[in-house]
Amino acid sequence: MDVPSTALFTDRYELTMLQAALHAGTADRRSVFEVFTRRLPEGRRYGVVAGTGRVLDAVENFRFDSDVLDFLADQHIVDEPTLAWLADYRFRGDIWGYPEGEVYFPGSPIMRVEGSFGEAVLLETVILSILNHDSAVAAAASRMSVAAGGRPLIEMGARRTHELSAVASARAAYVGGFSSTSDLAAGFRYSIPTVGTSAHAFTLLHDTERDAFTAQVDSLGSATTLLVDTFDVATAVRTAVEVAGTELGSVRIDSGDLLLLAHRVRHQLDELGAKNTKIVVTSDLDEYAIASLAAAPVDAYGVGTQLVTGSGHPTCAMVYKLVARADSDAPEAPLRPVAKKSMGSKISVGGRKWAARRLDEDGVAEAEVVGSGAVPPGLDDRQLLVELVRGGEVVAREPLDAARERHVTARAGLPLSATQLSRGEPVIPTEYAMR
Amino acid sequence: MDVPSTALFTDRYELTMLQAALHAGTADRRSVFEVFTRRLPEGRRYGVVAGTGRVLDAVENFRFDSDVLDFLADQHIVDEPTLAWLADYRFRGDIWGYPEGEVYFPGSPIMRVEGSFGEAVLLETVILSILNHDSAVAAAASRMSVAAGGRPLIEMGARRTHELSAVASARAAYVGGFSSTSDLAAGFRYSIPTVGTSAHAFTLLHDTERDAFTAQVDSLGSATTLLVDTFDVATAVRTAVEVAGTELGSVRIDSGDLLLLAHRVRHQLDELGAKNTKIVVTSDLDEYAIASLAAAPVDAYGVGTQLVTGSGHPTCAMVYKLVARADSDAPEAPLRPVAKKSMGSKISVGGRKWAARRLDEDGVAEAEVVGSGAVPPGLDDRQLLVELVRGGEVVAREPLDAARERHVTARAGLPLSATQLSRGEPVIPTEYAMR
Repeated sequence: MDVPSTALFTDRYELTMLQAALHAGTADRRSVFEVFTRRLPEGRRYGVVAGTGRVLDAVENFRFDSDVLDFLADQHIVDEPTLAWLADYRFRGDIWGYPEGEVYFPGSPIMRVEGSFGEAVLLETVILSILNHDSAVAAAASRMSVAAGGRPLIEMGARRTHELSAVASARAAYVGGFSSTSDLAAGFRYSIPTVGTSAHAFTLLHDTERDAFTAQVDSLGSATTLLVDTFDVATAVRTAVEVAGTELGSVRIDSGDLLLLAHRVRHQLDELGAKNTKIVVTSDLDEYAIASLAAAPVDAYGVGTQLVTGSGHPTCAMVYKLVARADSDAPEAPLRPVAKKSMGSKISVGGRKWAARRLDEDGVAEAEVVGSGAVPPGLDDRQLLVELVRGGEVVAREPLDAARERHVTARAGLPLSATQLSRGEPVIPTEYAMR
Repeated sequence: MDVPSTALFTDRYELTMLQAALHAGTADRRSVFEVFTRRLPEGRRYGVVAGTGRVLDAVENFRFDSDVLDFLADQHIVDEPTLAWLADYRFRGDIWGYPEGEVYFPGSPIMRVEGSFGEAVLLETVILSILNHDSAVAAAASRMSVAAGGRPLIEMGARRTHELSAVASARAAYVGGFSSTSDLAAGFRYSIPTVGTSAHAFTLLHDTERDAFTAQVDSLGSATTLLVDTFDVATAVRTAVEVAGTELGSVRIDSGDLLLLAHRVRHQLDELGAKNTKIVVTSDLDEYAIASLAAAPVDAYGVGTQLVTGSGHPTCAMVYKLVARADSDAPEAPLRPVAKKSMGSKISVGGRKWAARRLDEDGVAEAEVVGSGAVPPGLDDRQLLVELVRGGEVVAREPLDAARERHVTARAGLPLSATQLSRGEPVIPTEYAMR
């Protein structure tokens, strides 16, 4: 909000590096940047690519309009020649990447941005912001979706995260397998189905719980969801069915021992003849709590905090690294692999890379193969990167449902242990085939 | 982005509850909602209120324009009478709250929203989104700022979180004690000082490290910050001083054993005569890593991931609860305390509350006193809530520096153990004085 262009979602040093490179005559060197992680969050078996569609929007809207240029000039962030260069900026290079919803592993080249150094370096911050955030939420959503079996998951985390992070979280959750969201902005922006129940405040507003249920059913119909844990659950369930009839849509339980309560409430609803009334549970659920309710008569899970905070891992460790660049600004100058060589674990593998998922004889993934140069014949049709932007034009826009379906397929192609909730190593190893 | 009003940062059930209350004739009952947490994140000694200024902006912009109304109508989210009510909506009630930068404890009534049920319930989601996110980041920033002593902290986390969460994070970090940000949007939107260094990509773009340093110094001047860990640190430091001279502004170390390297680099810089050249360290710092560098010759810390993810606690557990409401919609109808009475730990304390911080004889905080009814004489001038919105008009806008300074003062008024990094209980207890 209140920021005129995605171009400001940028670390200052991207612009000052551009200025220095323009000054040195190196800004036009053809460059390849890649997004990858060195590791998955501890114990996780796979990652989930999410945010790709948002990256495409951000790249399209990455323009330096007069408001932005005035700010950069007023703050003396870059010099006049750089301001002039930025005024004409639009990304004219190429972007390839793992399609949204695909799974990834350490070293997977999740996105590859190719263009002049100047045009490509500027995109670093916003691309990483989007992919790091959205992929963290999608990974949590994917685990929760496995834990939920076929039961629907409702995203309800808006109040636990930044108001726009919430919108992106609802989107990423949908990619990861959630079926709906409580967040209206996510419905507005991404056409994700929105749902809602009722809050304790609504019950407390009224003189009795019966008054509250009556008010809700009178206005919203008997298909509504009544919240039954404001006072006594058994009393509330009885009142709910008296008020709404046996066609009551759902009841929601938001506190207490959900396993025990779900059984009791189901029994009570059945006894009252409300056999089709569903039970929705909420209350700080994560994938483990969801799994623990697998045998309980629960019809849907509402998940908030643990979803939008990535269930313990609110960000991914994705980085955006220069992996190859030309020796000069001549268009035909060959690319040379480059990599940082420093201490500790922050090593990068140089070179413009492809990636393919090798399958075993049963068609199950057995390795993430990352290489440079020619793709070996057996892997050619298993390549993972797809073209997203060609010469600055987005060529791979797709409906969000495509990403959601792709994720189901990609996850199903992994070894069975991928969907264990217990901690472990990445479910397939990453192999390098660098020439 | 692409969302026309803060009114959409709202859970669907807020609107359907409004519809049901309008239908039942209860929407106009005068209501008091309060924001509070039942607990601090595990081990934390105090919380930091942040986001108040953003809440005021959000409340002012909470309007249902035609785009929003069309969406709500198309999706059949609410009925016609409710749409008509929303079209005229603006918040006309009162908001009091802890001023931004103040510290808080379990049960502190951080914000109190008073108005009709309909107008106040709608604000729940966006108020919680902002306060839960911003306060989590500010709390981490405050701990880091304690750990850093007087050394400046640079917020560099934009790439690790949602692009707009990043802007709010930079703002909250500033409130919590950071001195600058790398995020240009935060500079644009909130006038927070922006700073930048250089990335490994810039070094790798050039044929040699010397070429890169020369390019940077030629364009940005010798006061710039050169990144010295792309290849060999000692070689880079020597080259840096050769290129920039002894007036080189800073060097940045982004990997390796920072304690060891800081000492080595300081020694080398001094030997080279660059006695005023500063050392900036970055690399997954949190408050503990910062504290461990207290004795090292470090001049500034750049902090990313751990800041924007709240250093292990990316959200607060703030809730927005109806604590009192009138029995009828008559303006003079008396308020009645209300509270959920259900299982587990989700108990609320009913009643419209005040809060005051009681001091011991040395002027140090000894209790957070939360009460309803008249404020005891000795606590009257220690009240914590201030008027923020009166009859829908924002009355407490202030520069961000005021919140930043307030936080320093508020933290300094706590017992000394508040600033221990080790885990513990809230540093002062919360006492209830309910009538």
